[in-house]
Amino acid sequence: MVNLKNDTFLRALLRQPTDYTPVWMMRQAGRYLPEYNETRKRAGSFLSLCKSPDYATEVTLQPLARFPLDAAILFSDILTIPDAMGLGLYFAEGEGPKFERPLRDEWEIRDLTVPDPMNHLRYVIDAVSQIRHALDGSVPLIGFSGSPWTLATYMVEGQGGTDFLIIKKMAYERPDLLHHILDVTTQAVIAYLNAQIEAGAQAVMIFDSWGGALSHAAYREFSLAYMERIVAGLTKQREGRRVPSVVFTKGGGLWLEAQADIGADALGLDWTIDIGAARKRVGDKVALQGNLDPAILLSTPQAIEREVANILASHGKGSGHVFNLGHGITQFTPPENAGVMIEAVHNLSRQYHV
Amino acid sequence: MVNLKNDTFLRALLRQPTDYTPVWMMRQAGRYLPEYNETRKRAGSFLSLCKSPDYATEVTLQPLARFPLDAAILFSDILTIPDAMGLGLYFAEGEGPKFERPLRDEWEIRDLTVPDPMNHLRYVIDAVSQIRHALDGSVPLIGFSGSPWTLATYMVEGQGGTDFLIIKKMAYERPDLLHHILDVTTQAVIAYLNAQIEAGAQAVMIFDSWGGALSHAAYREFSLAYMERIVAGLTKQREGRRVPSVVFTKGGGLWLEAQADIGADALGLDWTIDIGAARKRVGDKVALQGNLDPAILLSTPQAIEREVANILASHGKGSGHVFNLGHGITQFTPPENAGVMIEAVHNLSRQYHV
Repeated sequence: MVNLKNDTFLRALLRQPTDYTPVWMMRQAGRYLPEYNETRKRAGSFLSLCKSPDYATEVTLQPLARFPLDAAILFSDILTIPDAMGLGLYFAEGEGPKFERPLRDEWEIRDLTVPDPMNHLRYVIDAVSQIRHALDGSVPLIGFSGSPWTLATYMVEGQGGTDFLIIKKMAYERPDLLHHILDVTTQAVIAYLNAQIEAGAQAVMIFDSWGGALSHAAYREFSLAYMERIVAGLTKQREGRRVPSVVFTKGGGLWLEAQADIGADALGLDWTIDIGAARKRVGDKVALQGNLDPAILLSTPQAIEREVANILASHGKGSGHVFNLGHGITQFTPPENAGVMIEAVHNLSRQYHV
Repeated sequence: MVNLKNDTFLRALLRQPTDYTPVWMMRQAGRYLPEYNETRKRAGSFLSLCKSPDYATEVTLQPLARFPLDAAILFSDILTIPDAMGLGLYFAEGEGPKFERPLRDEWEIRDLTVPDPMNHLRYVIDAVSQIRHALDGSVPLIGFSGSPWTLATYMVEGQGGTDFLIIKKMAYERPDLLHHILDVTTQAVIAYLNAQIEAGAQAVMIFDSWGGALSHAAYREFSLAYMERIVAGLTKQREGRRVPSVVFTKGGGLWLEAQADIGADALGLDWTIDIGAARKRVGDKVALQGNLDPAILLSTPQAIEREVANILASHGKGSGHVFNLGHGITQFTPPENAGVMIEAVHNLSRQYHV
């Protein structure tokens, strides 16, 4: 078993006893940090940051230099897989990610192939190795991927959205085509996450950012079933430790019971659900990760501490809680407020771990 | 009691026996109808449509001329109240509603006053009278308003959004200011809806389009509590009939039990929740309205009929279900597909009402 100076995060994901509740933040290496913006300027663009293992390592470590976070997360984008499939990822200024060649014709869909992570996604795998080396056993490194449904929304729509009319039309009119996209993408995600684990990722997270846009039935058919296949296909043990998996469907709080049954070690929660209610619904099946509204970090230290205390109290005694935001930290967050949250989690949580 | 040729909708809202499940569609008078686009062109803009009782009457009746819908809904905008408060509603091409003068300073917030519906909102009240007259007892007329929280998001942010960072910062930093906005807006909504009822609206609906962006605790404090005050302040009886109220928080499926306790006759559901599961959670307290994903109307008649059948079967036997979409019909819907849905609801639902 590899020595980690701080394995609180991994232990909490496996619902093992810890001294306090570990904490990290989705998008913790991001635009709210001046040092991140400085590196991004040097790199030229967001994509250049992602595609250079040196830059990716540099920005991954930045929040850890500032804050006593309990985990690092690979700096990358959720859309690397469709980019490696040849769809042409680009970022239009102020508009979010887009694809030059979204999937529209049946022959394009039938032509999709699983990219070899050691070839077309080598820059990500190299970043994982390099970050893991640079962390030097301080805290665990999280690898990640988008969920097949979430990747498919971008692949079919060509961009993010709120209505998802093109892909939903496909789901109801030609489910066979959508299932083919999801099947190929699922194989790609399994290979990609296992390559990250092989390169040193000590936990993995699947981001299902757009699963919450589906109906209850369509969620099970087009998103959850594929995440279940991924979890089943993941490398479970590495370096003498279990590699825990976290599944996070934003807006998926209604479907927690179903999510808790797919074999993942932990579920991510957004801020719409009370974490104590979530704990009652899933019992001891999974750890829970979340769930402060990131907007709260724009307010005052007093409000931040109060809301952190509420979440910790609602989860209550016992392990199995990883504190996090319910979504990525916003670029408008004063960095010192993130520090207030992290300190509050560490200080206020000890009473629940005795 | 005023004679209505078809009161199925009103009876279902009160969970009284009906022969079939009534159906209407949110945004049923809208851009998917060529006749609507033609009228809008003549009027010049969306706002001119809303502000002219003649045009509002014309477009309200258009979907009823095409389809055997069980209710009409006043054609208007949810943002009429803040506009009447002097914030200056306008529509930037392709961008959704905005306000020229969003609330930013404390003095502006302290200066807010309740608009007299018979003065600044007279065009809406006149439209209600005129539509009611034109309907001539064929089907009931629904009046509506935005919820205080939803109105406040536009009033403070100046536009719709997805993150709501400005208003949430206020909620956590200066809750007193936000509560003042919500209090004045609540008084305005009560006066506005009661004026609509006085003018002939036979049911009213409160649209809480953005309540789902709040945390479970903030939803209760900043949205649900004010909707409860509105429901308590509504005129309950008019023309010898109860005037039923419907409360709809999009993305609020986690909080149904709390919603069912505020005294409304019915709850709106979006498509993320299984209506049978919702019925179990609320018991016999309220009627339920929903909940087909509007994207399904872009697919095939077969898929539409299948999904309608699934929803009807999931709700099961008994009254208390008003069929609807889980959100407004999209502009890309082929009108004949809306017709397929309505016919399927009428035909397939009779077996659940014997």
